[in-house]
Amino acid sequence: MKHRYSAAATVVALLVAGCSTEVEESTAQSAPATPATTYEWKLVTTWPKNLPALGTAPERLAETVDAMSSGRLKIKVYAAGELVPPFEVFDAVSQGNAEMGHGAAYYWRGKMPMSAVFATVPFGMTAQEMNAWLHHGGGLELWRELYAPFGVVPLASGNSGVQMAGWFNKEINSVADIDGLKMRIPGLGGEVFQRAGGVAVAMPGSEIFTALQTGVVDATEWVGPYNDLAFGLQDIATYYYYPGWHEPGATLEAIVNTEALATLPADLKIMLETATRAINQDVLDEFTARNAAALKTMVEEHGVEVRRLPDDVLERFAELSAEVVAEAAADDELAGRILESYQGFLAEVRDYHAISEQAYINARDSVAVD
Amino acid sequence: MKHRYSAAATVVALLVAGCSTEVEESTAQSAPATPATTYEWKLVTTWPKNLPALGTAPERLAETVDAMSSGRLKIKVYAAGELVPPFEVFDAVSQGNAEMGHGAAYYWRGKMPMSAVFATVPFGMTAQEMNAWLHHGGGLELWRELYAPFGVVPLASGNSGVQMAGWFNKEINSVADIDGLKMRIPGLGGEVFQRAGGVAVAMPGSEIFTALQTGVVDATEWVGPYNDLAFGLQDIATYYYYPGWHEPGATLEAIVNTEALATLPADLKIMLETATRAINQDVLDEFTARNAAALKTMVEEHGVEVRRLPDDVLERFAELSAEVVAEAAADDELAGRILESYQGFLAEVRDYHAISEQAYINARDSVAVD
Repeated sequence: MKHRYSAAATVVALLVAGCSTEVEESTAQSAPATPATTYEWKLVTTWPKNLPALGTAPERLAETVDAMSSGRLKIKVYAAGELVPPFEVFDAVSQGNAEMGHGAAYYWRGKMPMSAVFATVPFGMTAQEMNAWLHHGGGLELWRELYAPFGVVPLASGNSGVQMAGWFNKEINSVADIDGLKMRIPGLGGEVFQRAGGVAVAMPGSEIFTALQTGVVDATEWVGPYNDLAFGLQDIATYYYYPGWHEPGATLEAIVNTEALATLPADLKIMLETATRAINQDVLDEFTARNAAALKTMVEEHGVEVRRLPDDVLERFAELSAEVVAEAAADDELAGRILESYQGFLAEVRDYHAISEQAYINARDSVAVD
Repeated sequence: MKHRYSAAATVVALLVAGCSTEVEESTAQSAPATPATTYEWKLVTTWPKNLPALGTAPERLAETVDAMSSGRLKIKVYAAGELVPPFEVFDAVSQGNAEMGHGAAYYWRGKMPMSAVFATVPFGMTAQEMNAWLHHGGGLELWRELYAPFGVVPLASGNSGVQMAGWFNKEINSVADIDGLKMRIPGLGGEVFQRAGGVAVAMPGSEIFTALQTGVVDATEWVGPYNDLAFGLQDIATYYYYPGWHEPGATLEAIVNTEALATLPADLKIMLETATRAINQDVLDEFTARNAAALKTMVEEHGVEVRRLPDDVLERFAELSAEVVAEAAADDELAGRILESYQGFLAEVRDYHAISEQAYINARDSVAVD
């Protein structure tokens, strides 16, 4: 069983990397002729039911795999709390209580300090850069190595794009305004916020609205206009800050129990992987298409005031981010390799984007003919 | 046959849009039990054999579909000229001489002036914005409407990201330096270059190196460092200009003959569509990961001089681009709807990116802790 999984996983991993490979002939020919074995899987998520993009992504994944496999692989999706609480998704998949999960890697930071890197890094990579690192820069292999001891295989399964910095009921004019402020903010960004003098609170999305409304927190970030509008945050906060320095493109993850994956025939494995990759892009496409309209609604119908974080606040956060990231990598050898790979890739892609994506989008603005 | 295709196409299109839908139960259950019917397809491309990312994308698509379908759908890929010349790919698929093609929509501008919009628009959308418009903004539906009279169904199948402005053997210091310059530059960008006083030449990628080397053209653009290095352009030109105002994120297309698509069972249709979507992202990931290193090689080992186009040149190109795009849409009702949809989406996403992607990447630069 163990051996069989390893070989199959290699096929899948090579396909992801876009290398030329073939399913073994015997598997390839026998699959359609064999009476259809049906696999019925459970997928637990960290997201509230039907939350746009985040919550609907695993539903779409399940529908696509179902259609491609003609019903041979059925995945039933459970929202946060339906089967397990949101922050127990990783354990449920690790223990085999569910074959799959959908969430974000920074939620497992208590277990693995460097897991946050596979969600998002403060002042780190954008969605486009992160996808490139994961799929053509060695990132996915490191992520799999990190999760392997838990019997869990990760795949990228969505990206938010650059998020908003969050919701506040007072203006942030300098670093002093952060002092003592209680804010829901996860991952490495939360640690940075803490060191800047704030109080970082971790809580799943489902609890955010009530926490802000009842004063359990003074401020919160969530995702961006499309998701934040669905939560109603515009009704209980006035100032909406940008840019999302703490989450410049959060990768969502689909995680699969290693032994469950090993039971699948090769064709179903590749369907699962290919569908996840397609959904990975679809989520970013949806956010990109819907955020603009949602922001307009917030400003025009709800009186939201959009503000940019002042330079000195961004500068302080950037200094602390460098510290926090370095410390998270200090504890072991794998963490060090992950950070080295991430930072090396970021340095190269940042230089290139200075003359491509960034240079273009700034030029487009400066010469716009309206 | 016609009816059957329409119904199936709807299933596929809905899945692409991420809507909830199901394959009909009868199809779903019978497919694995039916003795495997094998489909052997030909895919013709506009790309030289094994060209990184562009040429390898259809090969990866074929491998993925082969593996997912356990060999039920075999796609044989032909490089430019192996079966048909590169600029006859669309006709070959339209006439059913090949079931599929892979290229870029601006190559068919002689047939449909607005087709170029589905590849790239000067000063238009980036890869992220374009994917959002196509898959969640109504773009793909319009593209399908445009190609339908030719019996061809398009899908997005790769993106270059922001390209480079091109290779020159003299410096471009003002609009006057464009005067009389012969440059290989396709699509709407070529038309703009022509109106700016240059001479735009259309030719497939395979002919570029020789044309520049022998003086048939004075300058050329191709894609970006990763592809341009493979062509050896750094050996015959000195100045490498940015940003790629004319191709801010060229969408590659996979095109399928409508009747051939209708012959596929529902599960194979969805595999083809899902694999294409996965490859669409994989190509951008590969370009993003490889361009930086390729540029470094060019500069450090080949003495390439990287230059930014002067503001007055970019401004003149932007003015002319607005004219050219408006004129291309003036000829019929569908073209008008395409332009309206594209420009409406661009205006919204540009405003939002001013506080998200653009604001973030500029902030990251200004506070970078190195």
